[in-house]
Formats: sequence, C-alpha cells, structure tokens
Amino acid sequence: MTAFVGVSDMVRWIAQHGAAEIMAGMADAVEEDFRRWESFDKSARVASHTPFGVIELMPISDPDLYAFKYVNGHPFNPARGYQTVTAFGVLADVHNGYPVFLAEMTVLTALRTAATSAMVARHLARADSQVMAMIGAGSQAEFQALAFHAVLGIEKLRIFDVDPAASEKFVRNLGSRGFDITVCSSASEAAAGADIVTTCTADKAVAQVLTDADVTPGMHINTIGGDCPGKTELDPRILDRGPVFVEYPPQTRIEGEIQNVAADFPVTEFWKVLAGTAPGRTSAEQVTIFDSVGFAIEDFSALRYLRESVAGTSLAHEIDLVAAPEDPKDLFGFATAPVPVA
Amino acid sequence: MTAFVGVSDMVRWIAQHGAAEIMAGMADAVEEDFRRWESFDKSARVASHTPFGVIELMPISDPDLYAFKYVNGHPFNPARGYQTVTAFGVLADVHNGYPVFLAEMTVLTALRTAATSAMVARHLARADSQVMAMIGAGSQAEFQALAFHAVLGIEKLRIFDVDPAASEKFVRNLGSRGFDITVCSSASEAAAGADIVTTCTADKAVAQVLTDADVTPGMHINTIGGDCPGKTELDPRILDRGPVFVEYPPQTRIEGEIQNVAADFPVTEFWKVLAGTAPGRTSAEQVTIFDSVGFAIEDFSALRYLRESVAGTSLAHEIDLVAAPEDPKDLFGFATAPVPVA
Repeated sequence: MTAFVGVSDMVRWIAQHGAAEIMAGMADAVEEDFRRWESFDKSARVASHTPFGVIELMPISDPDLYAFKYVNGHPFNPARGYQTVTAFGVLADVHNGYPVFLAEMTVLTALRTAATSAMVARHLARADSQVMAMIGAGSQAEFQALAFHAVLGIEKLRIFDVDPAASEKFVRNLGSRGFDITVCSSASEAAAGADIVTTCTADKAVAQVLTDADVTPGMHINTIGGDCPGKTELDPRILDRGPVFVEYPPQTRIEGEIQNVAADFPVTEFWKVLAGTAPGRTSAEQVTIFDSVGFAIEDFSALRYLRESVAGTSLAHEIDLVAAPEDPKDLFGFATAPVPVA
Repeated sequence: MTAFVGVSDMVRWIAQHGAAEIMAGMADAVEEDFRRWESFDKSARVASHTPFGVIELMPISDPDLYAFKYVNGHPFNPARGYQTVTAFGVLADVHNGYPVFLAEMTVLTALRTAATSAMVARHLARADSQVMAMIGAGSQAEFQALAFHAVLGIEKLRIFDVDPAASEKFVRNLGSRGFDITVCSSASEAAAGADIVTTCTADKAVAQVLTDADVTPGMHINTIGGDCPGKTELDPRILDRGPVFVEYPPQTRIEGEIQNVAADFPVTEFWKVLAGTAPGRTSAEQVTIFDSVGFAIEDFSALRYLRESVAGTSLAHEIDLVAAPEDPKDLFGFATAPVPVA
C-alpha cells in the first residue's frame, strides 16, 4: 500500500506542529539536501505551457529515493475562484520503483518555498537584518513572513500589494503573531529601509515590481515570483547590483530573473556557498540576490520531512495505488480475479 | 475533490465489463486519439535510470486535458516478489491546472498496451491472420492474447517462455477462454507458421528473442518488450525485412528496436497510416514491424476511457488531493485554520 497525506491531514499536521516550527525544521532538511547536491540525479522540470498557465512535472532522485511533484501555475485562476498554484507529490523507492508516499503539495509547496527562502537568507542576508519588505501579499506571503521570523528572527514587515484586500488578509492572518506590520502604498515605500526584500507576485509578465532605485546597499533580495518563461519581477539593472545566487542554472536561465539577460550572465549556484566552494555575502554593503524559481530538491526535502513526521500516525492513510499480485508475473490472474458482489 | 480509481476499483471494473470488451473499446479510443495526433502537445518521456531499473514520467496534453503517467521498469523485481512494472496516472484540466482524476495504472497499462498492439495490428497485419506466436509469457502476455482475440479474432496461439512456469500460468489463465494454445520449446518453434509474432520479454539487455531466420513473408511483428535504452528483442537484420512503424520517433529512436541502427533509419509514424498520409501494409507477402515502446497518448486514451466509464459510479472515489480555500488567495488562512480535536 502507498501512504497518502491529503489536504485535511496536512491541515491537521500544521495544527499539531505549528507552521513556523514546521518551516524551521524544513529549512534544515532543505539545507541538508542542498549540502549533498552532487548525490542527486537532477533535471530541469518538464513544462506544458498554454496561454493561460503551465503544468509542470519536477522529478529528482538520490540513490535511494525518487521524488516528483505535479504543479500548475494559472495566474488568472483567483479571479475565477481557483488557486493560482496547486500541487501534489510522490516519493518512490528507487530499488524497486514502487511509489511509497503520495501527498497534497499545494500547502506543502507554500511551506517549502518559504523554508527555502529563509534558509538561503540565513546564509546571504546581513546577520543584523531586522526589517523585511514584502512586495505581493498573495498566497505565499504569510508563509514567507513566518519562515523568516522562525529562521532569522524577522519581526518588522513592510508590505505592499496592488490589491488592498490582499494586504488586509495578510494583516488579519498575521496580526496576532507578534509582527510589527506596516502596510505601504507602493513597492518603493515598502522597500525603504528594508534589510531584506521579498518579491512574490503572480503576474505572468515581464514586470518590474522592484526598481533599481528601490535597492539600497546591504539589501538581500529574495525574488520568488519570477518562476517561468515570460514571468519576471525585477528591474534588470538590479541584477548588476550584486552577486546573483540560483538553485539549478539550467532551470533558472529559462525561468528566473536571469532569463532576460545574456546566457553567460555570471551566477553562483547556492549549494556551493554551503559547500564552501563559492563565496556568499562578502561585505555588509553588498547587495545579494537570490533568484529563486523553486527546484525539485526542495520538494524532495519537503516530502521526506513530511513522510518522516507523519510515519505511524493517523495523518498517513493507506491507498491502493499499486497492484500487488501474489505471483508478480501473474498480473492477469490478479486483474481478472472474481470479485464478490457488493 | 479529485476522483480516484484504486487497484480494487480497477479489478471490479474489469469484473463488471470484461477485460476483452474493455480492450476492444480502448483500442477504439487509442485509435481515435492517434487520428488527432497533431492536436497533442507531445514530448519524450523523462526517465531516471539506475543499473537495476528506470522510473519514468510520461506527460501529454491536448487543448483541454493534460495527462501524465508514472511508471517504473525493474526487470529483477519478480525474483524478489515485486512486479517488473507498476504505474499510476493523472488527468488534469488544462484550463485551471487542477488534477481531476487519479488512477492506478499497473493494470490499466497492461490493458492499454495490448489494446494499442491490437489496434495497430488491425491495420498492419494480414486480414486473414489466424495464428499468433507469443515470445514471452509474462505479465503482459494474456492481455495481448485477449486483445488480439477481441480486435482481430485470433484464436490460435503458439507461446514460448524461457520460464516454463510462465507458460503454465498463461495456459491456466486462458485455457477456459476458447483459445487453441500450443506451448513451444523455443522461439523459433513458436514463430513457425505464425501470421503475427508478439515479443514481450522483460530482460534489460540487447537480446535476440526472435532471429531473422524465424521471420517469414507476410508476418506482422509486434515487438513491445524493447522499450528502453539497452533493451531490445529483435535480431537487427529483421528491421530490414519490411517497413518499421513507430509511435513517436524522438522516443523510439532512444528506446525502441531502432536504437541500435543508424539515426536516419527510415521509419513510418503509425498515426500517418491512420491519417492516410503514409502507406501501411502494401502486399500480403510484406513483413510489417511495429516497434512499440509505449507512448503517452496511449495512456491519455486509457485514462479518459476509464474516467468516462466509471464517472458517477461507485468505482470512482473522491480524495482530497487539492486544497480548496474559500478565498483562493488565502491559502495561509486555510492551512492554519483551527482543527477540531478528534
């Protein structure tokens, strides 16, 4: 049988452990897997694009465990009552190829994206960072805020969204969690005085939600909304303000902020910073940019973290996804066995 | 909610409708989708290889429906009590990206593979074909036999497997279904006098389960076991005996029998035969070869056929694979909602 964690299980998991605590643990899991980057069989995700959205499969494997995620991105969905992003994922045993774990990942992806952002900022942002600006207060925003609080101790938030209702929702959701939140009327106002700027907007367009003039020395920029071809968030001049760190270059060059610059634009693979083979931040004045698009290793980490956490609990159900004939060569006998009438 | 058809549902579906009847209907569904080949967004499958097996994702999309299949192939599995191949698949709505249907596909793949073989043979084998040789009596064998019976009326079978227990299992499973079965002691003996030869063996090796001398004029060869790099079944000289028909050349040139011949070896895309833009069999003496590796459109057809058949019945269950927050932009509020203590 395959273990299954559905949406209601996921909500119960978060209620039991706390979103912040989960993301702190997940940040460590992602960091652990980034540190063993070279032990993974990696590939860029496989995308099926239409004018109104994208559906992607993101496979990844280490010598023992295979993972993949199904994820869509449909920016016009919220106007029709659907979410922009939904996802689910699977872990499989490399040794026999059997799927062993299936989980909803709409919520899990939100957790892992924020956990990854915070983990990277733990290494790239100035250690004395106190204020984070957030451009975009959509589905991902509260997760980012909580993860940065849990991992870096960030309490002061300056937020801006073109939709005032989104900012109101953000304040409503996080108001009681000890943050000092300032709702701003522009991205520039939000960025003023910020140590960290997180951009998480959903438009499938070459946008400039942050301009070069908004960027001040010492800032760490965590850009997560530019994550597919034709979808960017930064004024391209910002990319020349400091080193650009990426997850997996073959994917980021197609999908990230760097998709609009030269194919040989210099980037640093972030895992090398953890490995000590590439520099991270080298001064307090430096601007650091994490051009995040989301990579399959992060889903691998999130799925294995979830699986370990729910193993043996009532949060993991069994579903009969895999046929198990007594004689493995007799699939036909199994499939055509007489069935008792219900 | 997403509809789910698990293994036990699949077995009940087959008991209700009959494997042969299902494969006859599925052959029509696959043919229908092959006829609108150009309306699909196609790509070669994404494979993760290890020395002992492969895990693959097979995505495909038409303008309305997206499908993918997860499938493994681990030839050493049966010796350890596992199946060589397991699979599951998903259909998603292209318009909003939501997964709408999840199904076991270990059994469904066996049905669609045989349905596809029979559908292709309906167009390429001699209309007066009566005898089919089967090299390999493993998991796929009975499905092939039943599909060829349902679609082409084949009743006489000559089978050979290196493992006598497999042949015994084959006879046990099909003995009561009106076939005239001859168990042979070699592939050559099985092929003697056959109008159609189906090779379905599982070794991950460059094998020659059928030799050039076994091939006689007028034969249709349906080779389905050579389906990944390093895994072939035919004496390469057979490929020069007559036209070679394939599903999707970018995939077949890597995975099929033609992987060991020149990159420009001439092949006919089978869908063009259906479209009337390429010749099929042109004489009764011609040898025709279907170099089948299994293509994503076949899974698409099988999934949509299954989905339509079980819609509104007790065979499709709902599972909560996709989070559905009331406010699609408030995933956080949804994910952190208070949960009643069980």
